[in-house]
Amino acid sequence: MDIDLIRADTPGLAHGAHLLAAGSALMPRPVIDAVVDHTRREAEIGGYEAHAEAAEALDALYPAVARHINAAAQEIAIVENATVAWCHAFYALPIERGARILTCEAEYAANYVAMLHRAERDGLRIEVIPSDAAGALDVAALDAAMGDDVGLIAVTWVPTNGGLVNPAAEVGRIARAHGAPYLLDACQAAGQMRIDVKALGCDFLSATGRKFLRGPRGTGFLYVRDAWLDRLHPAMIDHFGAPWVTRDAYELRPDARRFETWENSYALRAGLKAAMDYADAIGIDAIEARVRGLAGLCREALARDGRIRLRDLGARPSGIVSFSIEGTDPARIVKGMRAAGFTIGASDPESTRLDAERRGLPTLLRMAPHYYNTEDEIAQAAARLRALI
Amino acid sequence: MDIDLIRADTPGLAHGAHLLAAGSALMPRPVIDAVVDHTRREAEIGGYEAHAEAAEALDALYPAVARHINAAAQEIAIVENATVAWCHAFYALPIERGARILTCEAEYAANYVAMLHRAERDGLRIEVIPSDAAGALDVAALDAAMGDDVGLIAVTWVPTNGGLVNPAAEVGRIARAHGAPYLLDACQAAGQMRIDVKALGCDFLSATGRKFLRGPRGTGFLYVRDAWLDRLHPAMIDHFGAPWVTRDAYELRPDARRFETWENSYALRAGLKAAMDYADAIGIDAIEARVRGLAGLCREALARDGRIRLRDLGARPSGIVSFSIEGTDPARIVKGMRAAGFTIGASDPESTRLDAERRGLPTLLRMAPHYYNTEDEIAQAAARLRALI
Repeated sequence: MDIDLIRADTPGLAHGAHLLAAGSALMPRPVIDAVVDHTRREAEIGGYEAHAEAAEALDALYPAVARHINAAAQEIAIVENATVAWCHAFYALPIERGARILTCEAEYAANYVAMLHRAERDGLRIEVIPSDAAGALDVAALDAAMGDDVGLIAVTWVPTNGGLVNPAAEVGRIARAHGAPYLLDACQAAGQMRIDVKALGCDFLSATGRKFLRGPRGTGFLYVRDAWLDRLHPAMIDHFGAPWVTRDAYELRPDARRFETWENSYALRAGLKAAMDYADAIGIDAIEARVRGLAGLCREALARDGRIRLRDLGARPSGIVSFSIEGTDPARIVKGMRAAGFTIGASDPESTRLDAERRGLPTLLRMAPHYYNTEDEIAQAAARLRALI
Repeated sequence: MDIDLIRADTPGLAHGAHLLAAGSALMPRPVIDAVVDHTRREAEIGGYEAHAEAAEALDALYPAVARHINAAAQEIAIVENATVAWCHAFYALPIERGARILTCEAEYAANYVAMLHRAERDGLRIEVIPSDAAGALDVAALDAAMGDDVGLIAVTWVPTNGGLVNPAAEVGRIARAHGAPYLLDACQAAGQMRIDVKALGCDFLSATGRKFLRGPRGTGFLYVRDAWLDRLHPAMIDHFGAPWVTRDAYELRPDARRFETWENSYALRAGLKAAMDYADAIGIDAIEARVRGLAGLCREALARDGRIRLRDLGARPSGIVSFSIEGTDPARIVKGMRAAGFTIGASDPESTRLDAERRGLPTLLRMAPHYYNTEDEIAQAAARLRALI
């Protein structure tokens, strides 16, 4: 990985050390150019005309996403964010009254409120699988909880509030063994680690473009395993996903694009395509190794200060470093760091309420370096943080 | 209206005469700049940081949209397109089994397939109100069709396939008189004519940014009348529209933003805000007068050629001019016009199937001038069209 070249491609690094890929990472130049160029082309010849002109290149987004996650192009829908992707799969899934939804303690707020909605509306029960000693979803407990009445297993792979990486593939093996549908939230995993839907054994997977993938805000994708496609009726349709074929009938598209609508921002799609290509050109395994390495350095640097309490869970943590500082206002720290040229963030207890309540977590601070960051930036950020406390 | 200034603000006009505002209009420079500048700012300091920095300006989008349609800011949701806006209202509305949905012959495909979906799923009946002699929804027939079992009146104000303007305010009076919910699709009306939700008497209204409003693709908005807000549960939620307040409960936001999700493209929103401001600075009444005037010229010029058959309905047609040419492939005409520097479009029968079947319509050609077009461009386009046939 040529870090100098990569950094030269990232204009945001001239404005300071951005250490928050878990929020919205810095876009590389090809992504910015793709969004801006398509926007300008729309302005020049019209929005429909710019789309028609670039149709082939834009359609290449589907096989690009598919390749990136080891799926087929017809299993991919491009939507406006990871939540919409997750919701489309979740709300389309038929679940029998009285059935259980199994989830994890680190489940993300967006998903959990939707589960509460369907639980109330459709007479379902939510069962939260306990965590193991390291803080990850307890695979043995999940296995023990399985039964014919499991309507869905829904798990967040990499939670937003810290380094945990849930055992997504082990969950997949259990789901397959019991024939239970499995919806994996890969929002924080995409672009940070290898996603192989076949190895993961998931039926549905949702992800965002704006985090570790370095795509534009307002982009996301959904994977739906081929075998599921004709069993899912989207909760809301239009004539793109469901063409109007006779006066009294529509026909759902055979592919995952039944979850899309006719109108989209093709400028953002062009940006997402550039982001996929950029990540793939570097190589996801090299990215994962570097992200984990830098996050490890970050943890070491922070751990040296007794006033900083690392809050990450899991045996082999992700690129999201979470911590708290007793008696210190997190907002002040974020602001102070920003003023000194370091972008870090905070994660509210409401984002991961089950875990936050169980562990009695305050608002956490988050540092999430990406491969474009340097060892130096991390050392300086840690030094600045110590000075700020 | 200073046409020269407006044209100087519209870089697309240097690339030919774009006569398809009904598809996706040419963005003016302030809209392009807003999208590009916010994208670049995101690239410089990060997506979350750029949003935080511009939060006040971005929040001003809600009162801007509200002012534009004579609503209150809390009645507005910003979503990714008009279909999503329409669907959010439609799918959230409780309708009793056995009830009727009343709609019009010109109803748009996106809406109609969603009605077919709910009709099947929820045991509803769709009743298409016939058109009057001029081709508009027959207000007397609608009045006669009213009854206690009307669960919804859903009407497309300005259909996509021609000049018809449905009597939206008269429909509103009937809806109010009978206490029936009224959902108005204003996708082709927004930016072309005055929208006053109080005068229209609608409960819900959906619109897009990309057409006559000259905003970016991938933008739209929904109006929900205040009195309805606490009776509508979105079909899909996340923790933005429905914050997770205790372990087992969420609370829907009190405003229309309960239909939004947490993640959005703020670059596109900045563009939509610029588009609203631009339209308001010119003045919607002046825009409407000029669009109707240019469309009228267009109809006159086309009517002079006996081979061109105008297909517009309605007594006082909108800015969308539709026509067919016996024995001529519409795709060839669109391509030929484009090659000569004139952008026009086509509208498939599937987009407005009820009307197309009733009238035996082929694929129609569409010309939809905006206020930035000139009398000259229209005369030249008509001459070129005659030469092409």
